[in-house]
Amino acid sequence: MSSPSWLNIHPESPFSLANLPFGIISQQSSVARRAAVAVGDYAIDLLQLSQGRVFDDEPQLKEHSGVFSEPTLNAFAALGRCLHQQYRLFIRDLLLEETSKPTLLKGNPELQRRAILPLQDVITHVPMAIGDYTDFYAGINHAYNVGVLFRGPDNALQPNYLHLPVGYHGRASSIQVSGAPVYRPKGQMLPAPGAKTPVFASSKKLDIELELAAFVCKNNDQGMPIPVNDAHNHIFGYVLMNDWSARDIQAWEYVPLGPFNSKNFATTISPWVVLADALEPFRTSLPGAPGNGKLLPYLQQGNADIGFDIQLTVDLVVERQVFRISECNAQHLCFSFEQMLAHHTITGCPMRTGDLIGSGTISGKDETSLGSLLEMTKNGQEPINPGMGLTRMFLEDGDEIVLNGFAGRSGGRVGFGDCRGRIAPART
Amino acid sequence: MSSPSWLNIHPESPFSLANLPFGIISQQSSVARRAAVAVGDYAIDLLQLSQGRVFDDEPQLKEHSGVFSEPTLNAFAALGRCLHQQYRLFIRDLLLEETSKPTLLKGNPELQRRAILPLQDVITHVPMAIGDYTDFYAGINHAYNVGVLFRGPDNALQPNYLHLPVGYHGRASSIQVSGAPVYRPKGQMLPAPGAKTPVFASSKKLDIELELAAFVCKNNDQGMPIPVNDAHNHIFGYVLMNDWSARDIQAWEYVPLGPFNSKNFATTISPWVVLADALEPFRTSLPGAPGNGKLLPYLQQGNADIGFDIQLTVDLVVERQVFRISECNAQHLCFSFEQMLAHHTITGCPMRTGDLIGSGTISGKDETSLGSLLEMTKNGQEPINPGMGLTRMFLEDGDEIVLNGFAGRSGGRVGFGDCRGRIAPART
Ligand SMILES: [Ca+2]
Ligand SMILES: [Ca+2]
Ligand SMILES: [Mg+2]
Ligand SMILES: [Mg+2]
Ligand code: NI
Repeated sequence: MSSPSWLNIHPESPFSLANLPFGIISQQSSVARRAAVAVGDYAIDLLQLSQGRVFDDEPQLKEHSGVFSEPTLNAFAALGRCLHQQYRLFIRDLLLEETSKPTLLKGNPELQRRAILPLQDVITHVPMAIGDYTDFYAGINHAYNVGVLFRGPDNALQPNYLHLPVGYHGRASSIQVSGAPVYRPKGQMLPAPGAKTPVFASSKKLDIELELAAFVCKNNDQGMPIPVNDAHNHIFGYVLMNDWSARDIQAWEYVPLGPFNSKNFATTISPWVVLADALEPFRTSLPGAPGNGKLLPYLQQGNADIGFDIQLTVDLVVERQVFRISECNAQHLCFSFEQMLAHHTITGCPMRTGDLIGSGTISGKDETSLGSLLEMTKNGQEPINPGMGLTRMFLEDGDEIVLNGFAGRSGGRVGFGDCRGRIAPART
Repeated sequence: MSSPSWLNIHPESPFSLANLPFGIISQQSSVARRAAVAVGDYAIDLLQLSQGRVFDDEPQLKEHSGVFSEPTLNAFAALGRCLHQQYRLFIRDLLLEETSKPTLLKGNPELQRRAILPLQDVITHVPMAIGDYTDFYAGINHAYNVGVLFRGPDNALQPNYLHLPVGYHGRASSIQVSGAPVYRPKGQMLPAPGAKTPVFASSKKLDIELELAAFVCKNNDQGMPIPVNDAHNHIFGYVLMNDWSARDIQAWEYVPLGPFNSKNFATTISPWVVLADALEPFRTSLPGAPGNGKLLPYLQQGNADIGFDIQLTVDLVVERQVFRISECNAQHLCFSFEQMLAHHTITGCPMRTGDLIGSGTISGKDETSLGSLLEMTKNGQEPINPGMGLTRMFLEDGDEIVLNGFAGRSGGRVGFGDCRGRIAPART
């Protein structure tokens, strides 16, 4: 498919003109953090566009363009979905072969030189100041598989599981951007099943969790729940998330208050926030969802297509060899992000711009589509054999994990880019 | 005991010269938030002291005094314990009858008029920007009592309980300052024990949790644990905390990932941060602590006096009648805040200035010293009779709870002031 842009955008790029995700960049030569949009192999520096006066003829866009000089996207997110979409469509227009504003960027090589930066030359950062981070557990096959491992098939899903999106509060300070090292955690664990006394050691069961995550753009007041059918207005956009997990630490610590140290050492997100509007065309139903008839009214959505058709992959990289260890789809969630927000706030919990909501681990139904090594190896009982004689139970130092995902077809992909992290030895 | 100050400080005041806790204030006539110190019935406006040049002869104090114009104490906290102590002792000196600096404040009625504000005329605010909030479960009698209620006396404490400070991540956005209303949460719960299908309702088991909490002042890098014997340098100070909890919502939701909606609607803290140094004279041992010999090395402290002797009270206020429903002591914790920080970060979890660490509910050993209604009423089986014919299982709309606590004796009290919240009907 030929590109409709005067920029050269590869048809397989996750950052087509249909996407235009927002992020925060800096450069070695220009260390101030500022907002950018990813397109093809480029980052469009929005501070440069703003200083180049491209927004000046659009009063609304001009008025708010100061947000692009901020070191996070929070101020931009707080503008609300209507303005997100206006900026996104305006930037799309600038990049179109048949742009309606040919003098602003297409015919302005001087501004192009300043504003259009090769992606490989920019440094990306955690795009939002994250006040609170919540991780749900809405991957129904994951919850079932883990339940089978620990409780057997008859009680695999807990009684509450299909009535509410189960979730827990995570550790916001530990969220890092794709590429940051993941130091192997140390902690307490039982030396063998059935042991009574814990030992102190580096985790031997360091695992991944393949997740989708949403950023909140709009606050709600304390005491005021977000109605499920208004929740879409509170969602800024989406990233991929790897919720690194130490299964041996988790098994010992998690009763009765849930995972804590096993999750608080690092969580990696992809750097480019795919705006909610860019994913709307890929809405689809969630086959595993309980359905409105089985849900209390506050979780009943007016629309049947509450999920997204996003193809997801997990690659294990060992000594520069890339092994695909999972192919999955976001359709395997059983609650929508709107339901997660409605449930999160039903008690009156205040959400704030920048809060991050993880989906829970996404696994498909068969062995090639699992979102964690815990499931792939049946908790370390059966190694995976990704190829070339390699075997793994859990992650080893030096292993790198790359999550990827996209919606849409060649020439119009709406993708996330890499969400990668390499395991480094414990620092101390 | 006569006061050593030229200010009139009641000997029973929690804010003696031995205390001098820091907070954030504003006034109806002066809405900008700024730092203050509480003493007796007054708030000393530190922005006014700074503008009145009282720090100008102390180069270190003068250099950093810009922190007092910030709307939170984070910048002050980040200066570190050495400077906290220097500012505190300097302000103490200003207030002494025999001050070494008589011209600065004692002999300066004009500055007194601007800087010394009646406490009743100031509005207090959440004193820190709280990035992450963690709640531990280190009240051993509480953990035991709850365990007996739900699992019986033989398995009351879980196997991990005395090996590590059990904790979970809480909801930072829901933390509010003393005096803010607590809206009764709604949510999912089972209509009766053994029921299979949840209903949607206002919580009928709205409860309190009496806790002590610490603010973090010093960061650690991701991957770098805080050694237990250095952890005191990371603690800014302490507040009282009421971790409001909806027991009916909690019972249905908490398996397997811990409490979520049952805790995320509101947590109330006292407004004045008692600096770590002010509490040091009240160090004492923790009788329920496992002791170094039973702990892994990373939790072993060099000092036996790892706790605090702080008397705690819980008052229930109904139609202006005050009923004391509990008297307790912080000695009933079984892990220190230093151990909590060491454990929290043993995996490399990064702590940031402003993070809040709750102790867990503090209960004594007898029926008059319990930190939750769950324990007092045996989960709603036996009402409390606080007096005047009043009975309660859990909190009713209009009920107010006031936590209080202090260390030290008359004339030299180091107290927290009120941590109060009144139950308001659900907002929607
Ligand atoms: Ca994590
Ligand atoms: Ca709470
Ligand atoms: Mg997860
Ligand atoms: Mg608590
Ligand atoms: Ni947080």
